[in-house]
Amino acid sequence: MHHAGGDLIGAAPKAAARLIEELRARGPRVHCITNTVAQAYTANMLLAAGCIPSMTLSAEEIGGFVGRAEALLVNLGTFDAERREASGIAIAAAHEHKRPWVLDPVFVDRSPARAAFARDLVKRGVRVVRLNQAELAALAHGATREDAIAYARATGVVVALSGAADLVTDGTRAITIGNGHPLMARVTAMGCAGSALVAACLALEPDALLASAAALIALGVAGEIAVEKSAGPGSFAIAIIDALAALDAPALLARAKVSA
Amino acid sequence: MHHAGGDLIGAAPKAAARLIEELRARGPRVHCITNTVAQAYTANMLLAAGCIPSMTLSAEEIGGFVGRAEALLVNLGTFDAERREASGIAIAAAHEHKRPWVLDPVFVDRSPARAAFARDLVKRGVRVVRLNQAELAALAHGATREDAIAYARATGVVVALSGAADLVTDGTRAITIGNGHPLMARVTAMGCAGSALVAACLALEPDALLASAAALIALGVAGEIAVEKSAGPGSFAIAIIDALAALDAPALLARAKVSA
Amino acid sequence: MHHAGGDLIGAAPKAAARLIEELRARGPRVHCITNTVAQAYTANMLLAAGCIPSMTLSAEEIGGFVGRAEALLVNLGTFDAERREASGIAIAAAHEHKRPWVLDPVFVDRSPARAAFARDLVKRGVRVVRLNQAELAALAHGATREDAIAYARATGVVVALSGAADLVTDGTRAITIGNGHPLMARVTAMGCAGSALVAACLALEPDALLASAAALIALGVAGEIAVEKSAGPGSFAIAIIDALAALDAPALLARAKVSA
Repeated sequence: MHHAGGDLIGAAPKAAARLIEELRARGPRVHCITNTVAQAYTANMLLAAGCIPSMTLSAEEIGGFVGRAEALLVNLGTFDAERREASGIAIAAAHEHKRPWVLDPVFVDRSPARAAFARDLVKRGVRVVRLNQAELAALAHGATREDAIAYARATGVVVALSGAADLVTDGTRAITIGNGHPLMARVTAMGCAGSALVAACLALEPDALLASAAALIALGVAGEIAVEKSAGPGSFAIAIIDALAALDAPALLARAKVSA
Repeated sequence: MHHAGGDLIGAAPKAAARLIEELRARGPRVHCITNTVAQAYTANMLLAAGCIPSMTLSAEEIGGFVGRAEALLVNLGTFDAERREASGIAIAAAHEHKRPWVLDPVFVDRSPARAAFARDLVKRGVRVVRLNQAELAALAHGATREDAIAYARATGVVVALSGAADLVTDGTRAITIGNGHPLMARVTAMGCAGSALVAACLALEPDALLASAAALIALGVAGEIAVEKSAGPGSFAIAIIDALAALDAPALLARAKVSA
Repeated sequence: MHHAGGDLIGAAPKAAARLIEELRARGPRVHCITNTVAQAYTANMLLAAGCIPSMTLSAEEIGGFVGRAEALLVNLGTFDAERREASGIAIAAAHEHKRPWVLDPVFVDRSPARAAFARDLVKRGVRVVRLNQAELAALAHGATREDAIAYARATGVVVALSGAADLVTDGTRAITIGNGHPLMARVTAMGCAGSALVAACLALEPDALLASAAALIALGVAGEIAVEKSAGPGSFAIAIIDALAALDAPALLARAKVSA
């Protein structure tokens, strides 16, 4: 069941190369429910990639924003009543308008209430869940990295699991992405911005596994380029925005590190 | 009716040159009701210009903050109940203490509820409305760039309309500002920060058209200087803060691009 | 009563040198209730220092976050109902789990309601209050810099008072720290980030005066290093993150400026 095959390993870098160009050409609108820590950085990463971010949470208007966007991100980083209500309305609007959406269940390992809320969201048509191993364990009752494929199959959701290497699986296919740099973990909202890029790629690419892999390859390669111009996590956080904005197909094809 | 005259074209760069020095010398307090995406960047831009920003929204204290500030910005970027209530209190305090205030009706083109709220605010003594063409159309029932002067005249409000070139008009006079760089549109909160600079200049300059023009010239020139030191939108967003902090009268007078 | 003694003057730089290494080695969790303007910058400064920040405010889960953290920061920068409620729950959890916490009473000089709230918090077991002179005067009914030692003694709280030089006192001992650079006042959230570093050091060092002094020395030295690589407040804000991440014991011991 766990087979990537040469096709996927060849296809993912090509998808990254194609989507990075298409994002710039088409400028999809991506609505983000995200925590206040991550909002500005996420918006700047989406803008660097050529997208048009929006971030309102207001119950009166979030449905309209999601309906006019091409994709939605729901990030649980600050789990307040306003965001919970906004999430419900936004997901209903995404369903009504057939917009793909991504869940980033930040810190569900730290809060049982948040984990329960996230488990409920997973049942509501999410296309991709992006998370780390502690979050997966909290979401799926102790699931390990080895269980990610079974969890994806059982839920029908693409799992994009971060770690030393990223694992992306839809339960049938799986691919490992080795791009990136440890400094990425030293910048707040880097993970949130990565999830937003997954949503952006999903706006243009219906194969959610391929869209997720493309976004993570692009972000990881941008990180590798940025680290060459950085003196620490502060300048790295800035340089990766520049690198994402300048990323091109040849760099992605040359640097993508994917394996089964 | 649409006449800038040589006076205004000569006066605007001089006002920018004078105000950029006065902001540093006098350090006006500028209270900002702005969206969480834009808060930090707006605060840093105001600090770079020599101002003292504050951003509280609490109903108990926002009136006091506005009363002790020299100008107010109301930005509708995140249109939640808390900000709506805060806006009402803040505007009443601005009226009571005779403080000028600026409206930035972000994304009114995306939300009828927000547009209706903004239209109501315009009637409450706002001095400057800063917006783009889609926002003007939503605010003024389909108004185009050509209608901006008539809208300013009808409402008694200075309109600062962004675009390939900025148009600033009070309904009688009008001026076009050609400074700036396309990268400014790739940085989140750049427009919001520009509106905050308009409020800052309005704290010191009673002629709202001149204050608006001065702020937009200063920001545009800072952007032109910054782009020379940038490798993309990430480093540009930082370099423009440096450039604004270092901006001086000779650079403004030499680089200002104003026309009728 | 006001005696630093050679011991403290020698001990503070050594504590800074030790704690900057221990933060990286042990990565304490620091929960921050802070204003939305400061959240991202504070998180990035804590990450640069090797800590793990969290920032949720949700009443359902903040108690759990604080219980699993090693220290807490309560910053009053945006004084809304949600943060007031969160502060109460968080402080109760800190008390229950014996976690040290730091208060940063931002802008209490601008709002009597905020000052009253802060005075109430000071009675609830806070270890360190970090503030400027206007804030001290508002908190302690007109107290001046000279009164800081008496205020610390009367309340049993360490006072970390910013100014041209920082004064840190527990009412018995006092130390003055001369590190830093004027550009630090031109970056929003720099003070908030400094208070977060105090909380981080307090997670590892039970002597609250030494922990506070170490954090302020480290931040000040990072600022001095950063200014050498900066072209203004924008690049300075980034360079100080890099400098903090790279800070080592020799630089701290060589550059610390402490006096009685």
